[in-house]
Amino acid sequence: MPSGRLATRLRALAGDDGVVDHPDALAVYECDGYTLERATPELVVLPRTPAAVAAVVRLLWDEQIAFVPRGAGTGLSGGTLPVHAPVMICTSRLNRIEAIDRTNRRVVAQAGVVNQWVSNAVRDAGLHYAPDPSSQPACTIGGNVAENSGGPHTLKYGVTTNHVLGVELVLPDGQVVTLGGPVEDRPGYDLVGLVVGSEGTFGLVTRATLRLTRSPEDYRTLLAVFDSIDAASEAVSGIIASGVVPAALEMMDRLILGAVEAAYHVGLPTDAGAVLLVELDGPAVGLDDQMARVERVCRGQGARELRLARDDAERAALWKARKRAFGAVGRLAPSYCTQDGVVPRTRVPDIVRAIAAAGERHQIRIGNVFHAGDGNIHPILLFDERDPGEVERVLAAGRDILEACVALGGSITGEHGIGVEKAAQMPLLFSPDDLLAMTRLRAVFDPAQRANPHKIFPDAKVCVETRTPRRRAAV
Amino acid sequence: MPSGRLATRLRALAGDDGVVDHPDALAVYECDGYTLERATPELVVLPRTPAAVAAVVRLLWDEQIAFVPRGAGTGLSGGTLPVHAPVMICTSRLNRIEAIDRTNRRVVAQAGVVNQWVSNAVRDAGLHYAPDPSSQPACTIGGNVAENSGGPHTLKYGVTTNHVLGVELVLPDGQVVTLGGPVEDRPGYDLVGLVVGSEGTFGLVTRATLRLTRSPEDYRTLLAVFDSIDAASEAVSGIIASGVVPAALEMMDRLILGAVEAAYHVGLPTDAGAVLLVELDGPAVGLDDQMARVERVCRGQGARELRLARDDAERAALWKARKRAFGAVGRLAPSYCTQDGVVPRTRVPDIVRAIAAAGERHQIRIGNVFHAGDGNIHPILLFDERDPGEVERVLAAGRDILEACVALGGSITGEHGIGVEKAAQMPLLFSPDDLLAMTRLRAVFDPAQRANPHKIFPDAKVCVETRTPRRRAAV
Repeated sequence: MPSGRLATRLRALAGDDGVVDHPDALAVYECDGYTLERATPELVVLPRTPAAVAAVVRLLWDEQIAFVPRGAGTGLSGGTLPVHAPVMICTSRLNRIEAIDRTNRRVVAQAGVVNQWVSNAVRDAGLHYAPDPSSQPACTIGGNVAENSGGPHTLKYGVTTNHVLGVELVLPDGQVVTLGGPVEDRPGYDLVGLVVGSEGTFGLVTRATLRLTRSPEDYRTLLAVFDSIDAASEAVSGIIASGVVPAALEMMDRLILGAVEAAYHVGLPTDAGAVLLVELDGPAVGLDDQMARVERVCRGQGARELRLARDDAERAALWKARKRAFGAVGRLAPSYCTQDGVVPRTRVPDIVRAIAAAGERHQIRIGNVFHAGDGNIHPILLFDERDPGEVERVLAAGRDILEACVALGGSITGEHGIGVEKAAQMPLLFSPDDLLAMTRLRAVFDPAQRANPHKIFPDAKVCVETRTPRRRAAV
Repeated sequence: MPSGRLATRLRALAGDDGVVDHPDALAVYECDGYTLERATPELVVLPRTPAAVAAVVRLLWDEQIAFVPRGAGTGLSGGTLPVHAPVMICTSRLNRIEAIDRTNRRVVAQAGVVNQWVSNAVRDAGLHYAPDPSSQPACTIGGNVAENSGGPHTLKYGVTTNHVLGVELVLPDGQVVTLGGPVEDRPGYDLVGLVVGSEGTFGLVTRATLRLTRSPEDYRTLLAVFDSIDAASEAVSGIIASGVVPAALEMMDRLILGAVEAAYHVGLPTDAGAVLLVELDGPAVGLDDQMARVERVCRGQGARELRLARDDAERAALWKARKRAFGAVGRLAPSYCTQDGVVPRTRVPDIVRAIAAAGERHQIRIGNVFHAGDGNIHPILLFDERDPGEVERVLAAGRDILEACVALGGSITGEHGIGVEKAAQMPLLFSPDDLLAMTRLRAVFDPAQRANPHKIFPDAKVCVETRTPRRRAAV
């Protein structure tokens, strides 16, 4: 079907303002938070209801046209990059929270509902939605489900898959299936668990039933300052070994501290080797004692300063500094690339050394801000987009870091997904037979490969325009 | 191949004592903890190593013979019942814990390792394996993985799937694949999550990498005594709403209390309507305050007595009473059948009434012992196997109860799986298309339906000898 006629038919389903086909407007959709590769869709459609999504998908199925789903575009592995998928289906207008059950602690949210809105909607009942990616003021539930998103507090509370009870999935032929439901156990195969993290390759999730978590009665939030990143890493192991289960346990190194302090002026020690941000939560009684233990461990590892947030404002300032660290990095270099990998947490000191070595080898400055308690690293590679040689060196350093993660018993992504970014690295972790089994699984849902084609698997990196990235404000 | 020749070839792989083919010996394997249906395998093979399992499966594949896996035979839904599967592969000799990593808190255990052994092996390091089915002194890791087993403490700690990081799976053609691994995140599709709970229909799990949990520093264990099961149910909701997260929150009704007290003499109040067993765990500081809150809620719901375990011995006695409740039921009737369903926890009072109504309707005595905090019910239906009419009424009452669970927004199994027992009820929860999608998924791993055929899905209840059950000592 000619593109103009398709646009007309899609407008009949999504409304006159529900289809984007002007080149200037389409440029907005050329990448997500992973900016090293770009591709522009031919059409973007923005349906207003789950039923309209199903109708759009059915039309595309009839016309044998592949599609790529997109939420808020905050993803970090190029999952929403159109690769041989002319139509992008954007869920941002599916923005209704359809049901709130405070007693049984669950919410039914449409795919385009922003993560933070869910917690806002139930705060009055002392509840919240636990997965808290740094992009939570912008990212959507649909994207969180597709990527199985994590966040600082997933150390204690688990990642997205631990908080999704059910989904409504539009299959690539437009059929709508409901998987899971309001209770915990799912007889038969765990199809909800299979769909969470499948990066849109089984179809498009339009609604999700989310588990809510009782908000903690109280918090203690500590900034522990160390002269070296090694000492901070050892303190991480010590805290975990002490029996305390922190709600979050984050690390930032000197490079990041400098950038964050310059941006937000929260009084961070810019001459420190690294800081840990340790948060405890739960019933108020006992928190002080637990924090005293954390402080003992930190002192034992030579912490030179322990700064306990005295009130909600100080706590908020520390978290703002951490969650906006990526944005602050814009001050350090014209461009940057956030890597994501994971190692067993006892290997954090090793991977930190490997990251430094990769930076030296390829002459790339690298900062570190990461979920230390999980062993989930986020090295930030700084570069200048105007230097093509430097872009190549960033890609090479990133590959080295991921290979080091695997060599240390870890994996090539902690929480950002595979997308197009890491498809070529999948063979580091999986045999050809494993990958074949996964593609066969996919074929059960999507035999014609119409839903987000060429993602996750190693054949994915085709025909995407690779170019030097532009600077981005924040992710 | 004639059965004698097959036995010879299997002996070459599993050792002379590794094949059971004498009818008397085979009778041991005619059922698991679900005794309402029975079927005897033609041969049982007990390999000693994962490699021998793979060799056995390869031989069966070549000979086009289907197999059924079995661990300790403690399952409660007939998952190990041979249905058109002449050969049973028993994993009980795969009993080695292969690796213990105390620092990163993981264990690699063979499939036949008994659940309790894992915790025993790491207790010195202050660690344990959290999923604790009542059968934990007997049931095996392989069976736990197949059934995604729960237990009382999964209220706080989650079920088996939350504690399995990776598995080694022998596919139905004998090929061995390793899924998942030592770190938390699994890029690509969550195949480990898919295999956990798949009841042996994707192949046979020979090894699992398990996450260990730091053992709590201290416990508080309370027995709260109520005049009615309704009051106890309301207290459950109140405790959860108070913000306390109990490690376990169990209920027993009057019928069960009488049986347990007669069997174990722990001083339970046999005239009570119901008791709650509430356990809190964590850092010692704060536990007393949290328990005070639990006690306040219980008193508010009219608890007539609150009995806090004063030491480890009292705590152990309470747990022994709860975990062996099923065994004690043998005193009440010649036979019993343990049902398993789940409802949203606010609907516990409703399902308790529906259970009582089903008992009256079909003239069956029913006791209740269940994971109240999860909404996971375990009505125990008492009957006499010598009365065929009564067996029919037990089956009818069980169906009514499961239908009531579904009508209340719940599901037909909380933790025992589908097996053969509940295959016919799957359409209560799933549309024909859903079930078709699941069988297609299965076909990715097992296109010829050689691994535990005729389980889970509604075509399963074929050619199994249904007969009146014998009395069993304990499950």
